[in-house]
Amino acid sequence: MKNLLVAQSGGPTSAINASLYGVVMEANENPNIGKVYGAVHGVFGLIHDNLIGIYDVESLKTTPSAYLGSVRYHLSDDFNDIDYRDILETVKKHDIGYMAFIGGNDSMDTVDRLSRFFKSINYPCNVIGVPKTIDNDLVGTDHTPGYGSSIKYIATTFQELKLDTNAYQSGRATIVEVMGRDAGWLTAGSKLACLNGLGPDWMYLPESAFNVDKFLEDVKAIYERQRKVLIAVSEGVRDVEGRYIANLLSVDGNLDAFGHTQLGGVSGVLGSLIKSRLGIPVRTIELNLMQRCAGHLTSKTDLDEAEMCGRFASKMVQNNNGKFVSMVRNDQKTYSIRCELVNVNEVANKVKSLPINWIINGNDISDDFIEYALPLIQGEITPAYSNGLPVYKVLYK
Amino acid sequence: MKNLLVAQSGGPTSAINASLYGVVMEANENPNIGKVYGAVHGVFGLIHDNLIGIYDVESLKTTPSAYLGSVRYHLSDDFNDIDYRDILETVKKHDIGYMAFIGGNDSMDTVDRLSRFFKSINYPCNVIGVPKTIDNDLVGTDHTPGYGSSIKYIATTFQELKLDTNAYQSGRATIVEVMGRDAGWLTAGSKLACLNGLGPDWMYLPESAFNVDKFLEDVKAIYERQRKVLIAVSEGVRDVEGRYIANLLSVDGNLDAFGHTQLGGVSGVLGSLIKSRLGIPVRTIELNLMQRCAGHLTSKTDLDEAEMCGRFASKMVQNNNGKFVSMVRNDQKTYSIRCELVNVNEVANKVKSLPINWIINGNDISDDFIEYALPLIQGEITPAYSNGLPVYKVLYK
Repeated sequence: MKNLLVAQSGGPTSAINASLYGVVMEANENPNIGKVYGAVHGVFGLIHDNLIGIYDVESLKTTPSAYLGSVRYHLSDDFNDIDYRDILETVKKHDIGYMAFIGGNDSMDTVDRLSRFFKSINYPCNVIGVPKTIDNDLVGTDHTPGYGSSIKYIATTFQELKLDTNAYQSGRATIVEVMGRDAGWLTAGSKLACLNGLGPDWMYLPESAFNVDKFLEDVKAIYERQRKVLIAVSEGVRDVEGRYIANLLSVDGNLDAFGHTQLGGVSGVLGSLIKSRLGIPVRTIELNLMQRCAGHLTSKTDLDEAEMCGRFASKMVQNNNGKFVSMVRNDQKTYSIRCELVNVNEVANKVKSLPINWIINGNDISDDFIEYALPLIQGEITPAYSNGLPVYKVLYK
Repeated sequence: MKNLLVAQSGGPTSAINASLYGVVMEANENPNIGKVYGAVHGVFGLIHDNLIGIYDVESLKTTPSAYLGSVRYHLSDDFNDIDYRDILETVKKHDIGYMAFIGGNDSMDTVDRLSRFFKSINYPCNVIGVPKTIDNDLVGTDHTPGYGSSIKYIATTFQELKLDTNAYQSGRATIVEVMGRDAGWLTAGSKLACLNGLGPDWMYLPESAFNVDKFLEDVKAIYERQRKVLIAVSEGVRDVEGRYIANLLSVDGNLDAFGHTQLGGVSGVLGSLIKSRLGIPVRTIELNLMQRCAGHLTSKTDLDEAEMCGRFASKMVQNNNGKFVSMVRNDQKTYSIRCELVNVNEVANKVKSLPINWIINGNDISDDFIEYALPLIQGEITPAYSNGLPVYKVLYK
């Protein structure tokens, strides 16, 4: 009876440990799977034989970040590379016949390579990919675990920022920077706060070319009407030539030439522009790492789906190699999803953008998005509390 | 039968509406108090006769920010100032005999002046102050409503940031900037995360002179030992001569001269220093407005105490003028507080620093603080959810 190895890689999320929980729970219940090993720091742990047993899973489902540790490491194209020799050694030593990698599009590249490697040497080890990323930019799946919790956090925070910034009489523009280098899924999530009347005035996404003058006109128009402006902007917004707005160079306080220096975020650049060109007081806010690790505010739907993907992977990896767990939305009135398998090479290294026709006038989001995203943030799973603080499961402190 | 006016001022918090709720509920239950009016934007609403009736209080207790709108406005020393004439007009028009101002030390100055004004003209209107501020820097009270929820959010967020930044193998210093221009109470709150093994490595507070070289040595030592550094720093840290570290001027990427330009926060300044002097990768994070408006993660103890202060004010304002609601910690094994009255002029315009002997070696916090602060973050009050997001009560959208 072969053992199963599970690993996590790419950026942490609030749901990646729920998928780990699902993989482990299902494997433990399966009489055909032996032990469950976790690779510490993903493929790196596999290469360096740094594995741990996973027995106790209490609090794991509600713990954010990657319990096993993450990694950004690319395996070589060449199966003669020494990494593959080391991996095979670890696999043989621990009699591993199944591998589940929970990760994003980079990680699916690892799944693709490992599955082809084992096949090329006829070694009986199946590798499967489990989706994970707050960015929601994986192809081949309706959405990704982690995304729902992130936009629940983002939309909630926009509600709260709206209340806070509206408390004063004095006029001000507030620019909130949301993650998303290539896709605007997270920034679009702020639109959900509009359902409760507390959303941003405008949203700017990487999918739509960013025009500085148009942006300043947008801000000015809102400011003149209501003296308060709340803007959501993706870190990755670009101009029509594809240059990141975050890299606009400061020249004597005016930002109008492009340079090659990272100035510390697009919100700072846009804030400086509003101050110098419009003379409007500005506050800039980066949601930063909090938008991907706020384990105290997760979507029940998201965590349950993350677990479901993990369980499905544990089941299917016994008879499938080089596959990816896809979430498919059932065609019913009430929202539900099912898991299916797709070939991982159809997913690896690709980016799914937000449909361009869901962006209105370059600064707003359509109801199509709301219909798509609203089910993903439903329900809450509150972690246990100790000392007045959430209890999280920790491998390393 | 006289009516009661309630107002809010100063920076928003997650608990100021719980005090408003308390004032209103108690006044409604009191047969000797007539209607309850809210002054929109504090004393400004009083001057300009912008009052509203407060009838429906559903969701008010768990709504962050200031429901009635806040203001930063100083009344004149001179009771002949036109503001006082306008205020008296509003008071007479609506037959107001009682006023409760929920606010910080600036707002207590308003309470002091108004109470002396009414006394000076022998007009029967009593004014009372209800404590509020996340900064916890009010004298004359054990702590302030709003503080407990803020440090619950801060400590929780530190736990989550610790998990997130530990997920990767690569070394990095993470500098987290916490509010607190004059007092380190909020930054000290991050220490509570250490109880669950997930706190910052070091904390730097305004009460202790900040030495740049010592700071860099601290960071270097931790980095060499564990390759991950998590730092909490108050926005208001100063050097031994009292100059804000946030105002360190950038000279060719090195920060060693002092200028007069706000560079956008102390975390950015310290991040640049670590990069240029130590060559360690850095991420800087500002908890920004989120630390004072995260209504989705509040302390039950804090909100209940905030309500209690509001109720006490409604009761006591009938027979007291120029007073302030103080929270006194009962001398018992189990934590509890009671409300008492102190003279508001003993509170106004003063700042309570964290006791200097609670700061260890300039970069750590003693157990005395933990014993003091831990009771304040106990329990959770979750708001109602609609559309997957918290339901907040809104006067203006």
